[in-house]
Amino acid sequence: MIKIAVLGYGIVGSGVVHVLDINSGIIAKNAEQKIEVKYILDIREFADSPYKDLFVSDFETILNDPEISVVAEVIGGVGAALDFTRRSLEAGKSVVTSNKELVAEHGSQLLKLAKEKNVNYLFEASVGGGIPVIRPLTQCMNANIINEIYGILNGTTNYILTDMQRNGADFSDALKEAQLKGYAEADPTADIEGHDTNRKICILSSLAFGRHVYPSQVPTEGITGVTAEDIIHADNLGYKIKLLGRARSVGDKISVYVAPHLIAKSTMLADIDDVMNAVIIRGNAVGTVSLCGAGAGKLPTASAVVADIIDAVRHLHSRRWISWDEGGANLISDPSLLDSAWYLRTDATKEKVEKEFGSVVFSQVPASQTAFITGVMNGKMICDLLERGITAKSQFRILGDY
Amino acid sequence: MIKIAVLGYGIVGSGVVHVLDINSGIIAKNAEQKIEVKYILDIREFADSPYKDLFVSDFETILNDPEISVVAEVIGGVGAALDFTRRSLEAGKSVVTSNKELVAEHGSQLLKLAKEKNVNYLFEASVGGGIPVIRPLTQCMNANIINEIYGILNGTTNYILTDMQRNGADFSDALKEAQLKGYAEADPTADIEGHDTNRKICILSSLAFGRHVYPSQVPTEGITGVTAEDIIHADNLGYKIKLLGRARSVGDKISVYVAPHLIAKSTMLADIDDVMNAVIIRGNAVGTVSLCGAGAGKLPTASAVVADIIDAVRHLHSRRWISWDEGGANLISDPSLLDSAWYLRTDATKEKVEKEFGSVVFSQVPASQTAFITGVMNGKMICDLLERGITAKSQFRILGDY
Repeated sequence: MIKIAVLGYGIVGSGVVHVLDINSGIIAKNAEQKIEVKYILDIREFADSPYKDLFVSDFETILNDPEISVVAEVIGGVGAALDFTRRSLEAGKSVVTSNKELVAEHGSQLLKLAKEKNVNYLFEASVGGGIPVIRPLTQCMNANIINEIYGILNGTTNYILTDMQRNGADFSDALKEAQLKGYAEADPTADIEGHDTNRKICILSSLAFGRHVYPSQVPTEGITGVTAEDIIHADNLGYKIKLLGRARSVGDKISVYVAPHLIAKSTMLADIDDVMNAVIIRGNAVGTVSLCGAGAGKLPTASAVVADIIDAVRHLHSRRWISWDEGGANLISDPSLLDSAWYLRTDATKEKVEKEFGSVVFSQVPASQTAFITGVMNGKMICDLLERGITAKSQFRILGDY
Repeated sequence: MIKIAVLGYGIVGSGVVHVLDINSGIIAKNAEQKIEVKYILDIREFADSPYKDLFVSDFETILNDPEISVVAEVIGGVGAALDFTRRSLEAGKSVVTSNKELVAEHGSQLLKLAKEKNVNYLFEASVGGGIPVIRPLTQCMNANIINEIYGILNGTTNYILTDMQRNGADFSDALKEAQLKGYAEADPTADIEGHDTNRKICILSSLAFGRHVYPSQVPTEGITGVTAEDIIHADNLGYKIKLLGRARSVGDKISVYVAPHLIAKSTMLADIDDVMNAVIIRGNAVGTVSLCGAGAGKLPTASAVVADIIDAVRHLHSRRWISWDEGGANLISDPSLLDSAWYLRTDATKEKVEKEFGSVVFSQVPASQTAFITGVMNGKMICDLLERGITAKSQFRILGDY
């Protein structure tokens, strides 16, 4: 029997306690011992909860209890979560988390601290919710040089874009719909501006390329600029629009960015709809591997947190092999130098477009504006061409092999 | 520095040696030491190989060399491979393999032997080639009760079916084409009759449900009965035809079988074309997870074998957590009791079909035969109905939630 503490009783925290309860048999079998929640840390009261006797409001109770060797931090953010994580690791307790912000901002320090203390800091749930990502990448594909990693990493924006695609909804209506259904928060900024995807691609890049990539190093464009017209034009041209986080090795550097992309409808990634997520990894031996599933949600995320708890319990006195080195400005290559075909929407006439861009593929949707796909060029070339009297209303990359 | 032996220098064996060579830097980093191939066991001569000095023809050389602590068995089959695997494990050497036949037939004994000797028997490459499957299932999803696991597990048959779909080819022409391109062997029986898929679903079932499922327990239908007409009718009805291995929990038993299925074109699985594979896992917390990539091929398979080598090197003196219990007849539920909608093709008239089957959906392709989709019923009900004077030329399940 091992006793653990769960920090935070929000959606993920309550899911963790629930999964540990309903699947206790299989979990005990896989951990080779029973796992019991001894404390739940939350300042709120849950008088009607079946777990109400487990609640404590003071972190010191947990920190000073030598019976607690594994802590699940599911508070989120970089305030109390950082403080509690640091102190838990320093006290020789392993920490598992779904907190992408904390891992993206402070992952390398926390991993270093965990290593010094010979305990584990695990965060499978921080990317892709319940989708297995971190172990496949760091264990199953560790005989590969990783060339690229990218994906649909945010369920809220994918839900909104899918709604726009299916029902012709405007962005603002689709956002309201997502909020009504509980797929978007009252303040949706972190999702729709791409910050959540930014944090996740930072974590994936750091794992794939071995050095910490910080959120501030990643140019990030959300989906607020995607219009109903863009969706219709893209559809006519054979594409869906999806928000991607993407990291690609370029020589000894990496290019990392977040932006909406056009994805060919004939590809598997275009079928990742609603709140589903997908992570695509390209390795030099394995080729392309795709991992898909529910990228968020109470039970899927809890499934990944509990898997980490089991792993921490199995490895109380040995270290799991997740780590990366410090990052730095010299690691990052400017993503605007990456080649791509591009989708553009503009007020300019087709004649003007063809004069500046040469041979392009025009959307055949009757519209007052002109939408088209360019040949392959990098972002700087697009900027140069656009300076010749064409104003882009929308400008998105086409995902492809360039 | 650790020294290993590779048993067999066929496609996978030469791939393993190649990947260890070209990716030696990242492999040494991830294994925390250099990995060197000391022996390659093969009775053939490879006089022009850059590795020609490593070849030995006598397994005893490897067995008796205490410097060898990890052996990669990539011979295939259940003859020499079984003998060498047993003796390696008995001698305290860890064994990694891509040999699905051996794992499917003798996995539980070999895992038991490895446990007794405190060494590892790892086989990530035996299912799905380079696709991460075994670690995601046994580690990332181990807080779940698994309800179902299924997938497109054989690249050769998927290539043939894709060719039939795209080009209207007959089965026999598509098979010849696949043989010409090297995607099918001269004797394609193991692939087209479903034996390869059978072995892989046995391994996946054993891992997912914790008890050994043997190939002889799994009703297996290959793709030789899929005709060009079936593909056209299925297309008209909104489906592609794919060969699936499928295992589903039914009470405290499991239903396991291999058969062609109709897959709705709107789903992700329908886009897994050519030689690509996909494994779908449904867990009670995580929901549905899909893992996709190259299911075979020299370098993808080698990528998985080398990942296991790295894992074995990291865990020379500790055990990885893969195991399952012995199976038995009482584990298996008759898959013909599983509900499904069905695709049938018959000489009977539409009137006769509607008389016996009630409301069905007919293919609108003009043809001398009648093709249609039934309501939901199990295989026994289909048999009963077919005894009323309707002869089925083809009979496949529709994949769906029933």
